[in-house]
Amino acid sequence: MKKNVLEKVAGNGLINRRHLLGMGLTGMGMAVSNSVLGAEDGLEIPNWSKFPGPGPSSYGEPSRHAGLQRIAGAPNPTYPGGGISRTPLQHLQGIITPNSLHFERHHAGVPDIDPAGHKLVINGMVRQPLVFEYEDLLKYPMMSKVYFIECSGNGRSNTQGLPGGTAQSIHGLVSCSEWTGISLSTLLDEAGVQSGASWIAAVGADAASMGRSIPLEKALDDVLVALFQNGEPVRPEQGYPMRLFVPGWEGNISVKWLTQIKLTNAPAQFRDETSKYTDTLPDRSSRQFTFPMETKSLITSPSGEMTLQGTGLYKITGIAWSGSGSISLVEVSADGGRSWADALIESEQRDKSLTRFSIPWEWNGGEAILQSRATDSAGNVQLTRQAVIADRGTNAFYHNPGIQSWTVNTAGEVSNMAV
Amino acid sequence: MKKNVLEKVAGNGLINRRHLLGMGLTGMGMAVSNSVLGAEDGLEIPNWSKFPGPGPSSYGEPSRHAGLQRIAGAPNPTYPGGGISRTPLQHLQGIITPNSLHFERHHAGVPDIDPAGHKLVINGMVRQPLVFEYEDLLKYPMMSKVYFIECSGNGRSNTQGLPGGTAQSIHGLVSCSEWTGISLSTLLDEAGVQSGASWIAAVGADAASMGRSIPLEKALDDVLVALFQNGEPVRPEQGYPMRLFVPGWEGNISVKWLTQIKLTNAPAQFRDETSKYTDTLPDRSSRQFTFPMETKSLITSPSGEMTLQGTGLYKITGIAWSGSGSISLVEVSADGGRSWADALIESEQRDKSLTRFSIPWEWNGGEAILQSRATDSAGNVQLTRQAVIADRGTNAFYHNPGIQSWTVNTAGEVSNMAV
Repeated sequence: MKKNVLEKVAGNGLINRRHLLGMGLTGMGMAVSNSVLGAEDGLEIPNWSKFPGPGPSSYGEPSRHAGLQRIAGAPNPTYPGGGISRTPLQHLQGIITPNSLHFERHHAGVPDIDPAGHKLVINGMVRQPLVFEYEDLLKYPMMSKVYFIECSGNGRSNTQGLPGGTAQSIHGLVSCSEWTGISLSTLLDEAGVQSGASWIAAVGADAASMGRSIPLEKALDDVLVALFQNGEPVRPEQGYPMRLFVPGWEGNISVKWLTQIKLTNAPAQFRDETSKYTDTLPDRSSRQFTFPMETKSLITSPSGEMTLQGTGLYKITGIAWSGSGSISLVEVSADGGRSWADALIESEQRDKSLTRFSIPWEWNGGEAILQSRATDSAGNVQLTRQAVIADRGTNAFYHNPGIQSWTVNTAGEVSNMAV
Repeated sequence: MKKNVLEKVAGNGLINRRHLLGMGLTGMGMAVSNSVLGAEDGLEIPNWSKFPGPGPSSYGEPSRHAGLQRIAGAPNPTYPGGGISRTPLQHLQGIITPNSLHFERHHAGVPDIDPAGHKLVINGMVRQPLVFEYEDLLKYPMMSKVYFIECSGNGRSNTQGLPGGTAQSIHGLVSCSEWTGISLSTLLDEAGVQSGASWIAAVGADAASMGRSIPLEKALDDVLVALFQNGEPVRPEQGYPMRLFVPGWEGNISVKWLTQIKLTNAPAQFRDETSKYTDTLPDRSSRQFTFPMETKSLITSPSGEMTLQGTGLYKITGIAWSGSGSISLVEVSADGGRSWADALIESEQRDKSLTRFSIPWEWNGGEAILQSRATDSAGNVQLTRQAVIADRGTNAFYHNPGIQSWTVNTAGEVSNMAV
């Protein structure tokens, strides 16, 4: 690597975000002579350039060198098929999550639904109860939007201060896709919402009959009946043939395998909004219906269980999101929050979508604490871990947006740390 | 289906694009009584709602009911590993193409590259020749953009007037992804482009040593060295560990398995820009370096080899794109081009990206010819098939943007038709 003057913008090695962006000063390229480059000049030719590889295929797969997989939590014998798997955030870039790597949360496993036998019922406080077949719904106008979805239990071990872990194991219950579906307001309008209705109750066709209540105002705003995800029919583990998609709100409320929407004048008080998905506070009371996911960000590289290979220039990168708007600013600290520098935004800054940030960092071989802090378009600033604990204690289980700290020791080892 | 007054906006059954969008007049829902809906009321419960399904997995797959696969062309024994596979456009919605279904075009198959042994060389007319390792490149700032890529041979059988085929078999060499990579201008700036350099020559590490020349002006504009596709490392069949990505230009020029960029003062005249990827005209001369993909659209449903199930309301939907900007308008005709109606745009209208359109259509059981016509932000209007032939004949092989016609007969059978 060539050496040159890097503009430091915060403590412990953070460098101006515009560095390397067309500045042509200090890059990572190794200088060589013109005469010994290129195959014609005697550069060793790898075998993959000498012999033809296999031809086209009917269905593609990632490179075996990429090491991509979700990691499933331990199964619970009292809930067959229930459980989670987490997205390998530390291996991804950009903001889209490939469908095969989208996180999962099931309450009774993945039903194998034949769309020809699946129905969506809209009933309750409506002028005209209706039932829709899958083929009927394909005839409606749809809209396509890129949205994140996050399980409200994501990041719990950060709040609790549990040691160890990776970006995937601590925060891998968030993913982002292009969701394509019908505006729920269109279907509700067709059924005719009765005066006095104020909630909908959405129920899934899985063996758990997972159900959640949503205020009618949100249901008429930006909620979709989603039939496609990243271009293809919604995957079975994401709700095939259709799911509710409630942008920005806790993931569980985007009911998968959607089969019924009932208009009501009060929340249904489903099992999954009483015994679960409530936030237990220090005084043992519980908050119910804490819907929007808070403003959050996460450094995905360097992150837990990675090791830096020697001093020098690194790229700090990560994702940020908010259930209340787009991301307007991400700041990064390399000294545990004493000083902060603005990160570069690498992706589009969409409403309720993941946003990708990065900043160059020169590691001098000393100890460091890496943190990121997001601000959304509504002015919400990501809470510190201590502020989350002050607000709701460590037993709330759900809603853990606190700032993640990764420590770097003098050996370059990166670890989760509760600050 | 309920009957109601539909606002006709063009001949042979085209309906106002805003119909069904929250209008609540004539939907596809079947009216039923409130008392016999919902599981508690005796509606038959399918087995998938009675028994738990399998739990989370390390890597997901589409539903077996979705029938998604690429279709590969016949292998050519003189080019081992060479060939194509086409994207199942008629099964997709939104604008993203899942990576496993992205079209392929290989000249010597898919190399199995270990990124630890792969190098990117920048040499030729530069101040300082450079070589980059994969791990080096991961340290650069990147940008993420959604772009289409289309093989310039796509749609050839439309120009030639060959009978039969589907959206996939005729036009399946176009796909769309979020591409994440380094701005090529950053790397070129680091090497230092010499005065007088006017082209780059890009070469791949496959056994075909696929090479293409690109004017320096474009190379410094929006070209990427792409390392990620839809969030994950670029797939092997798309160029793992890195490919050039040249937005809006014929797909072949986005050199996969990129290993060398040489700055020159003239095009390199690679085999793939002399014997191939030139457009043979009726006078037997050939056009060379016809880079931008033209303004094009395609109805993906109803499309070839589908059958309409009875008269009534259908949704016409498809995709539009242009190598010269975003899509500003898509018009649809149901009477072979005699009358046109504006389609609804269902997706974001991004620069050099697929754009999704739709319009409701009431099929009266008679014959119909369905067409779509796109206009881009630069004012380019999609050419008719006859205009394409008048410009370049039927042997040009590459660049086939002509309007696609699908006929519907009285049995509801949809077929490709050369108009």
